[in-house]
Amino acid sequence: MSTLFKNTAVLTKKEGKYEVIKDAYLGVEGKNIDYIGTKKPEKHYEIVKDFSNKLLMPGLVNSHTHIPMVFLRGIADGLPLDKWLNEKVFPIESKLNADQIRISSYYAILELLASGVTSFTDMYFFPEGTAHAVKDSGIKANINKYILCFDENQSIEESMIPVSFDFYNKYNNTCDGRLKVDFSIHAEYTNKTHIVKEYSRLCKENNAIMHIHLCETKNEVDNCIEKYHKTPVEWFEELGTFENPTCAAHVVWPTDNDLDILKRHNVSIVHNPSSNLVLGSGIAPLRKVLDKGINVGLGTDGTASNNNLNMFEEMHIASIVHNGYNHDATNIRSEEIIDMATINGAKLQGRDNTGVLKEGNAADIIAIDMSGIHMYPVFDYFSILTKSAQASDVYMTMVDGKILYEDGKYLTLDKDRIVKEFKEAVESFYN
Amino acid sequence: MSTLFKNTAVLTKKEGKYEVIKDAYLGVEGKNIDYIGTKKPEKHYEIVKDFSNKLLMPGLVNSHTHIPMVFLRGIADGLPLDKWLNEKVFPIESKLNADQIRISSYYAILELLASGVTSFTDMYFFPEGTAHAVKDSGIKANINKYILCFDENQSIEESMIPVSFDFYNKYNNTCDGRLKVDFSIHAEYTNKTHIVKEYSRLCKENNAIMHIHLCETKNEVDNCIEKYHKTPVEWFEELGTFENPTCAAHVVWPTDNDLDILKRHNVSIVHNPSSNLVLGSGIAPLRKVLDKGINVGLGTDGTASNNNLNMFEEMHIASIVHNGYNHDATNIRSEEIIDMATINGAKLQGRDNTGVLKEGNAADIIAIDMSGIHMYPVFDYFSILTKSAQASDVYMTMVDGKILYEDGKYLTLDKDRIVKEFKEAVESFYN
Repeated sequence: MSTLFKNTAVLTKKEGKYEVIKDAYLGVEGKNIDYIGTKKPEKHYEIVKDFSNKLLMPGLVNSHTHIPMVFLRGIADGLPLDKWLNEKVFPIESKLNADQIRISSYYAILELLASGVTSFTDMYFFPEGTAHAVKDSGIKANINKYILCFDENQSIEESMIPVSFDFYNKYNNTCDGRLKVDFSIHAEYTNKTHIVKEYSRLCKENNAIMHIHLCETKNEVDNCIEKYHKTPVEWFEELGTFENPTCAAHVVWPTDNDLDILKRHNVSIVHNPSSNLVLGSGIAPLRKVLDKGINVGLGTDGTASNNNLNMFEEMHIASIVHNGYNHDATNIRSEEIIDMATINGAKLQGRDNTGVLKEGNAADIIAIDMSGIHMYPVFDYFSILTKSAQASDVYMTMVDGKILYEDGKYLTLDKDRIVKEFKEAVESFYN
Repeated sequence: MSTLFKNTAVLTKKEGKYEVIKDAYLGVEGKNIDYIGTKKPEKHYEIVKDFSNKLLMPGLVNSHTHIPMVFLRGIADGLPLDKWLNEKVFPIESKLNADQIRISSYYAILELLASGVTSFTDMYFFPEGTAHAVKDSGIKANINKYILCFDENQSIEESMIPVSFDFYNKYNNTCDGRLKVDFSIHAEYTNKTHIVKEYSRLCKENNAIMHIHLCETKNEVDNCIEKYHKTPVEWFEELGTFENPTCAAHVVWPTDNDLDILKRHNVSIVHNPSSNLVLGSGIAPLRKVLDKGINVGLGTDGTASNNNLNMFEEMHIASIVHNGYNHDATNIRSEEIIDMATINGAKLQGRDNTGVLKEGNAADIIAIDMSGIHMYPVFDYFSILTKSAQASDVYMTMVDGKILYEDGKYLTLDKDRIVKEFKEAVESFYN
């Protein structure tokens, strides 16, 4: 299958510098981009699409989320974190079954595709259902079966490690490479030293990626220091976790020494501003982190602490909140936000052939409808994309050269059936 | 003209408490709501609309904006405030003519209506053009011809007071009361004592509303204290400005004494979180202001410091940023945000028959399409409206019983003509 987009604008990046090519052609052959230019390609493409008034840009990577939590969207609005977790989220989650997770994953992917997400990193239980939804939908994802341990005396065999490793072996690099499986430690405060050490070693043995929650709240850091006389970052470092390519979500409360450790080990950070604001966790030191040269992705977190999986809102909030907090209109540049939402996410997922539109890269592409009233004038594409564009401006989402969503329609998923099944599941669970 | 909405949900408020009535009818006779209930009304309505899967709620009030600044949308992204103003905004504004302001106003109202705004308070020059756009579109607005004075020795006659007063006399309470004119002082730092004193007196003589910028930046407050040994709030109080029903925009840097003064004089505040974040102005002490019992509206400010006129994004940001900043997930309640975006805005505009859906009130109503993937499940309507809903979920906007926007179409404005004319104006100005 080959597709040519014509009369379109294309956001490319050459030698680290973004450029918008206008009145351009972009050709896709199989899974990859094979042409970008202003001259009409000589080659014949099977499908030709006139994308006037549209901008093609790299698909968005939601680098840290818990997509099945759409089942709990906004359920505990206005509760403090401990009540949110202990009185609402945990009791509900303890009753959710694999089938509810499965249908929730399909439902969430409808939202992801319609808002321009071509890949996501997820951390939730019963990930088998999420794997099926990834397979059927055509989206890319890094998922995992994360480990928890609350018992000092639990043996490795009795721990979640074998189960997590089985899941890794069964699903990693399936769906033609679209589906990858990471190793994952839920967090320091939900695990024990001997388990984390062994699991980190096993991750290294398998050259896998590690995904963790890290320094989300001040409490987490304070409690860890009290317990271990170490910050969570120091604790994970000592246990060998960071000897793996690691992706750490949140990181709202790192010390300067923590950031040095993370940089030294090439740990990637996922910024989750909406969730950190909603739950009162705080405002992460994004400028400082970027200035260290740390790779930073962007994520929505789950919809119980965000209310949506909307990466455009996440870009908007990330692009303005640090300026206000630091009293500096130049604190975060819009291009940095686009990097975080695209190429940096691809990097932390271990996907090196995507995140930027260029010949040879995977055709993970979204088209933004530039004709909205709120999208004009365009003095600066990055300003418009981060602060004006809405999820509803996404016209098309393509992954590996296949269109999954276009003009409000899903090409791989049966929206009506999924919505019906999800609503039945929600209503029978809560009533 | 009479209209009946059936099979709809209606957000009402009784004795200060919100309630969502499901499977309801809402009847509109002429300009007003004449029925809300679950029983089918006996009366015959000329038009009957089935609004299944929709929620009717009060129209949004954008309580502080500069709508013609769509001409400068995002023009100075990432510039610090002084460069933003002095190198970009001011030089451009000095060249804008009345016709450019007029077409910009029409264009901006397209964005307002499509995103559920039924009334706005504007502060910009050449407001005659904005008045015409208000007249033709059917929207409600409080506009003004604000005063500036940089000359200690300027006489009242030579000042902008007579011009501002003429504008007030000509346009106030026109368009059947939809268009109101306020008095307006741009800010402390752009005015002189004798002018502000006389203008405040004249405002009182006319029982008008005063609209001002106040304590937007720390610099503004510091410079005022250096100049007058008073905060801007103390300065305005002494000059009699607050003896008028006053609406003060921004108020990011008030002292505790300032808030006491504002409360004592029943001054309303407009919260503009996006603009304050974008420009690095800071994060206003919203909880403290609400706890004082001060009336607080919500506004987008202009699109040069926001990039859009989207009150749903403004509600979202206002509903989460204070929780994060104050490390308290319970800092601001979603209902408070809905109040700010509706009834509180109506109050500060001096419109006492709108802002809440109830029988007898003006039919200033918007319909939210609740069928979006991101709008389910609904555990809490306020959480969904402030943190999940997008501007693109607005299905209908009605003002004074007249539908101005429905299902993507404008009923009073010629969208294509306005867009064409606006684009021609922008292109000929900047090229």
